[in-house]
Parts: sequence; C-alpha cells; structure tokens
Amino acid sequence: MSSEQNPTEGLGRRPYLAATAAFKNGGDSPRAFLERCLEVIEAQEERVGAIVSTNFDAARKAADEADARWKSGKTLSPIDGMPIGIKDIMETAHMPTGQGSGLFTGWEGKRDCAAVAALREAGAVIVAKMVTTEFASSHPSPTRNPWDTTRTPGGSSSGSAAAVGIGMLPAALGSQVIGSIIRPSGYCGAYGFKPSVGGINRGGSFDNFSQSCTGVLGASLADTWTVARAMSLRAGGDPGYPGLSGPIELPAAVKPKRVAFLETAGWPRATNGARQAMADAREKLRAADIDVIDRTSSSAVEGVEKAIATARELSMQINAWEGHWPLNTYARDMDKSKLSSSAVGRLEEARKMTQEQYQGLLAERESVRATYEALKSEASLCMTLSAPGCAPVGLDSTGDPVFTVPTSLLGVPSLTLPVLKDEGLPLGLQLFGYIQQDADLFAAAGTIDSLFHS
Amino acid sequence: MSSEQNPTEGLGRRPYLAATAAFKNGGDSPRAFLERCLEVIEAQEERVGAIVSTNFDAARKAADEADARWKSGKTLSPIDGMPIGIKDIMETAHMPTGQGSGLFTGWEGKRDCAAVAALREAGAVIVAKMVTTEFASSHPSPTRNPWDTTRTPGGSSSGSAAAVGIGMLPAALGSQVIGSIIRPSGYCGAYGFKPSVGGINRGGSFDNFSQSCTGVLGASLADTWTVARAMSLRAGGDPGYPGLSGPIELPAAVKPKRVAFLETAGWPRATNGARQAMADAREKLRAADIDVIDRTSSSAVEGVEKAIATARELSMQINAWEGHWPLNTYARDMDKSKLSSSAVGRLEEARKMTQEQYQGLLAERESVRATYEALKSEASLCMTLSAPGCAPVGLDSTGDPVFTVPTSLLGVPSLTLPVLKDEGLPLGLQLFGYIQQDADLFAAAGTIDSLFHS
Repeated sequence: MSSEQNPTEGLGRRPYLAATAAFKNGGDSPRAFLERCLEVIEAQEERVGAIVSTNFDAARKAADEADARWKSGKTLSPIDGMPIGIKDIMETAHMPTGQGSGLFTGWEGKRDCAAVAALREAGAVIVAKMVTTEFASSHPSPTRNPWDTTRTPGGSSSGSAAAVGIGMLPAALGSQVIGSIIRPSGYCGAYGFKPSVGGINRGGSFDNFSQSCTGVLGASLADTWTVARAMSLRAGGDPGYPGLSGPIELPAAVKPKRVAFLETAGWPRATNGARQAMADAREKLRAADIDVIDRTSSSAVEGVEKAIATARELSMQINAWEGHWPLNTYARDMDKSKLSSSAVGRLEEARKMTQEQYQGLLAERESVRATYEALKSEASLCMTLSAPGCAPVGLDSTGDPVFTVPTSLLGVPSLTLPVLKDEGLPLGLQLFGYIQQDADLFAAAGTIDSLFHS
Repeated sequence: MSSEQNPTEGLGRRPYLAATAAFKNGGDSPRAFLERCLEVIEAQEERVGAIVSTNFDAARKAADEADARWKSGKTLSPIDGMPIGIKDIMETAHMPTGQGSGLFTGWEGKRDCAAVAALREAGAVIVAKMVTTEFASSHPSPTRNPWDTTRTPGGSSSGSAAAVGIGMLPAALGSQVIGSIIRPSGYCGAYGFKPSVGGINRGGSFDNFSQSCTGVLGASLADTWTVARAMSLRAGGDPGYPGLSGPIELPAAVKPKRVAFLETAGWPRATNGARQAMADAREKLRAADIDVIDRTSSSAVEGVEKAIATARELSMQINAWEGHWPLNTYARDMDKSKLSSSAVGRLEEARKMTQEQYQGLLAERESVRATYEALKSEASLCMTLSAPGCAPVGLDSTGDPVFTVPTSLLGVPSLTLPVLKDEGLPLGLQLFGYIQQDADLFAAAGTIDSLFHS
C-alpha cells in the first residue's frame, strides 16, 4: 500500500516524557523532538486541519533553550522543552486567539493566559493554536478526524485531539463544559484529562462557565498528568479553588478495589462494537481481580444513574444562562451575522430564562453532586465509554456528548484512555473519580491502562 | 464667598430615582437629568479628574430613547435612563478600557462586560469610564477628592467615588477586593455597596480575585440598591453563584434588633473626630431603641474581632498569589517599564509563594468566615467606620483600608452611608451583614440611614 493510500501509516501518539531520557546525553533533544512534530504537522495538517496559527520560529528558539537546559541538567520541570498546542480560546502572547468565531479572527490579546504563562515558566514550547468549535461550543470546526477524514474529530477541543492523536504534538490544552476534552480524545485516540472543577487556572481563557475546566490531551498517561500538574503548580486553580494537587510526576499505579460501571443515559445508544469493547474491558478488570459493580448489583450505583439521567438537559440550561453574556454583547455590539445560528439560538434560550430559574438549576446540580459523592464508600472510581461509538461520519456535528456530560455536571476529574476500538477506530475508556482526588484517579488509571498494554 | 473660593458650593449627591416621578408628566426627563450631570462634569472634571473617557453623543441618544419610554410608560426598569459611570477595569463596547495602566491606555475590547450589558438592557445610560488605580490595586490615580483637592478620593474606585460624591453622576460601578468601594465612597460622600462575594457577574471585568466583587457607588440608598439589583437580575452573579437577590426596588426599611459594633484592627488608628462621630452614631441607634453590642459586652463579637485581626495580611497574601497572573505575562510579554513599582513588587512577592501556601491561606479564610457566620445569632448586622478618618492629605496614597478589608475577606455584603463627618469632611458609617443576605442589610440600613436625616 502506498503512503497515499494509507496516509496515517506509522503515525500515532508521540509521548514526550518517555523520550527525555536521551536528552541528557545528547542522543535526542527537545529541538529534534520538535522537528519530528513539525514534520508530521507539515505532512498531515492539510489533510486534518487541526491548527489555526503557528509560531514555529519562537518554538524552535524555545526548544533550543530547552536543549541547553537538559544538557546542563538545569531543567525547569519534567516537561521542559515539550511541544504543546493551545486551544484557540486561550490567550497567547505571540499568536492570535480567534475562539473559532469570525468575530474574533486574528484578535490579539498580546498576553498569555494563566495556563500558558505557567507552561512557559515550566519550559514548555508553545507551538500552535489549535482549532476549536465556535466559542468552544457546538458549532463545528473544519477539523477532520485524522484516522478517517470523513469523520468528526469531536469537539470542542477538535484540533487538540486530532493533533495529539496522530502525533503532531505530545500534548495540547483543551477545555470541557459538556464533553469537549473526553469525547474528542476518545474519537482521535488521545489520552484526555478533565480535572476537578477549578483545577487549573482559567484566567485569560474565554471560558466563563461554572462547570467548565481547562484540561490536557496527551500522548501518554504520564504526559497528560505532568502537563496538567506543571500548570496547577505554577498558576494554581481558578481563584478561590485549591487547584489540582499531587505529585509532580505521574502518581504510582495503584490497583483499585472496586470500580463502578455507569451506563449513563448513553448506554441505549451505544453501538454493538462499543458494547463489546466495554464487555471486554470489564473482563480484563475482572481477570486482574478488580471488582466491577453496576446498577444491577449496587443500589448506590443505581441512585447515581438516576441522578445523572438528566445531566445533559441540566447542563445545557445552566450553560445557557451563563452564556447569556457575552453572546448578548456580541449580538448587539459586534457583527451579529458572524454568529452561528446555534449561538443565536442559545442567546434566545438564555433570554427566556430568569435568575431564579438559574438558582434552582444550581440547587439541582448540588443535589446530583451530593448523590454522587455518596458513591465514594462503594467504589474507588467509575468507568464508562467516552462516546456511544467511534467518531460518526460527517463534519456537521461533533458527536454525541451523552457519556461525557455527567462528569462535567458533577465537577469530578475524568480521564479517557485510548484503549478501546469500534469499527477499527479509536474509542476511549472513560474513568472518573471524586472532587479534588485527581491524583488518585491517575493512580488507578495507571493500573487499568497497563491491562491493555500487556 | 465667590464660586472661585468655594468651587463645590451647591454641589452634592444627585439621586436619580427620586427624580423619576416627574419624568412621566414631562416636568423632568432623563435627557434633562443627563444634561445636569454633564454640566457638573464640565465644571468640575478639570479640578477633580474622575474620568478617563466619555461617549456623550451615545449617552444623549440613549437618554432620548429613555425619555420616550418614560413618557409612554414602557420603561425597561426603574433605572431606565439613569446616567452611570463605569470603572475603567470593566469592558464597554464603545469606550476603551485602560485599567489605569500605561500598558492598556486606549485598549478596546469592543464588547460590554456582563454588568454593563445588563445595565444597557435595563435602559441605563453609560456616560463615561471612571478613573481607577492601576489594575484596581494600590498604585494611585490622578483623581482628587472633590471636597478638598489636596486629598485623596480613596481607591481603587477613585473616579467613581469622586463623581458620585459631587453629583457628576447618580451612580457608578466599582469593585472591591480590599477596600476599593467602601473607602472611596466614605471619603467622597457617596453611598457604596460591595455585595456578597459572587453577587454581580464579573464577566469582562479585569478582576480575577476570589474575594473581589463588582459593586455600586450611588447617590442614595435606593439608587445604589436598584442599580445593583438591575444588574444581578439580568446578568446574574459570577457563574456558579446565585447572585444578588431580593426585591427590584429598595427593600422596605426594617428596624434591626441588635447591631454589633466592630472595632476591627483599625480602631487604634481612628482619629478623634472619627471616634466622636462613631460615638454619636451609637447614641443615635440607642436613642432609636436599637441595641448595640461590642467586644466588651459579647464574647461572640470578641471572637470575631480576634478572627479578623489579621484580615489585611491574609487578604494581601491571597491576592498576591491570585495576582501572579496576569502580572507575570505583563512583565514578560509586554512593556515591563510601564508597570508601577508596586505591581512589580507584588509580582516578586507572588513568585516566592507556593500553591500549597495558597491552599493554607484559603483554609484560614474559611475558618475566619465560619467564626463570623456564628455571629448571626447575636446581631442582625455589624457596623464600623469606613476609614480611620476623613480622606488624608496627599495623592501619593489612597488611604488606609484597615476598616474595609474584613468584609472583603469575609465575602459578606457591606454598605457605607455618607452620614458621618471628620474635620468637616465626609466619612462613612459602614454596615455589613451576612452572605447572600444583602437585601436584609439594605432593609436595616434604611432604618439607620433615616436616623441621620431626621
């Protein structure tokens, strides 16, 4: 088969931390690593469309500086020299921030958002701004799934997922308020991590939703954790939140006692391939002596299933009210014709809502969170699919967020492992834990991830 | 005495709601009200320096539209047509947002912040951007106290306080993280209201501090409440917060059972004039059969006094960590020479801090808040001074925030009434209540305010 017939041959996730051992003796270097990334970008970008803007000159200069630090043993952090892409809703000093909207094409804030400033302080190399759906919401971006360009990469962190999945970059930043990290990661074959709500400082990200969170899409479990932790260490969480805590490097794997399988409202829509993949995954856990409970065996799980049944509707309503601004000023004070019809629709929905309704929604969310918290005594963590199946064909929708919205509503840390397949295409195994216990989730994920690589 | 000798003769607060009764029959109008404001601005601005930028044409057009609505009985809200000034850290669609910093002079976001968008939806007339200290922090602005231009107007809402105190405008927006609404209001003779933390949506305000809050400086208790409530009704609070609640118009006055007088750490620094003014105020309350307790008569009050003794240090440390970004990107990616030495100092302080330290500070703040909350069973509200005395001479400092920082740390609603005097100059009587009970605070304030006008 010629490379034209199989344009993805030899491509896949490109972990960074695993490569750094050779940086000290000069066998490899951050600059050489970056050049390998740029080769993939060069070869794949036209086909995939993951990137909005780049600053390769600055990236090469930063990588050279990292080379010197690795050689002298004076690295700034474990991710020193790591090439990273930034979702295009987050401000970066030397690249525009377009928010996936014609209203903001080329807009320059001239400053770094808190997360990017922290990455630079950790020595990371900021390579590109990654395609996002409009305002990180539902209106699709032009990015294509790298494994089948007739399919969606998922959204809203579309470019980040596609780039990390195919090895353009070892990591990229995303954000999730409904399913914007976990779903595209699953579709594109990347690891994806949405921290506990408030886990990573969102200052300078155009993201005002109360259940939204900045997170990381990465090429390995270690890359994903270490990038997230490097940010929270330097920039903290959202103001007033403790922020993601735990070891600087990937927490040591811990075998969980018991895992709760949650069907969520999505199970009836799951494909046969996805159901089979989940059955196989459960079997792998059982074989490793990890107990799996579900709604048929645990009333606590049953209670959570009921509590999260309306997670999507509840989240959409909360987001509608919270998204009233800035859509109202965009529609009145800027060129309204550049808003998508879905953005205009959300604005109209928001205008029908009242503050009192919103207060009721917040109370409802609190109640769902309390129900979930009670599961802690029953299960070390939960698992489900990242989506009902592999990425659907078509670019007019970013896919179904039914499996991802519960953790957004709950505010709990969620992680997807690229270890399942459906129709031969990537599908994620989603694991999620409890608020502020992100490190414990990664420790358990370390064990579970390894079951699929043995 | 000629007007040159007494440039403030005949000037003072200019309430709006009290004027609206005459709008329906055409005896007065929003446009005429605006013109009276513009006359004071014209006459006083050079002397006071409260304003950064204006858009009088748009204001006149908006006032004319309000005229029509009042005449047809189709007003958008009780504050329809009200001329309002906006602190220059808050984005406005048709005026630049300079943040009191040379780094941002003339910067245009081209959109409204959530609070301003809400004000426009309520029919308010946005007149001007009001001077703020650099980034709403400590580095002074050029604004002068309107009642004695050798003195500070206070900060950081300097222009808002000066303008409302002297009658340029019936209301202006401010923000407070340490003392930036209550102190300047007290110095300039305005009412000032800092809501419960999260009370008014800060989207689009350059204000990321966890204990900061958008609030209102107003010409009357009714103007102050109604503006704040008009915003929260339409824009809600910060995402995830219920937001300021209560009646749309000023809550009916309620006589409080018991008021706790808090000395705070400031009492030893209070001037003789301020102490006498407070003694007189206590006497007025006693005469009205309102019980006043203090640290000598209540162990709960004594406990709160101890808990808030280090409010300033604790707040400054929390703010330092939270202010690391964006100062780090301003210093690295923009023209560092345009940062004040105090901003550079705060950045250096932040760089010495760790996320773990910050987590400890948050826990300490929670503990102080819990101690205060327990006072609820003892006192309907608390009172103290707005500052140790009237505005100090000199423009190189914005005055001492010792009396205002406790409510910022506590996150409770705070209100200052312009009813005290020191050296013949304005001083505020500060009243504060409990989280989410802002309307109750105004109800009690209605009774207390009236004691000084009878």
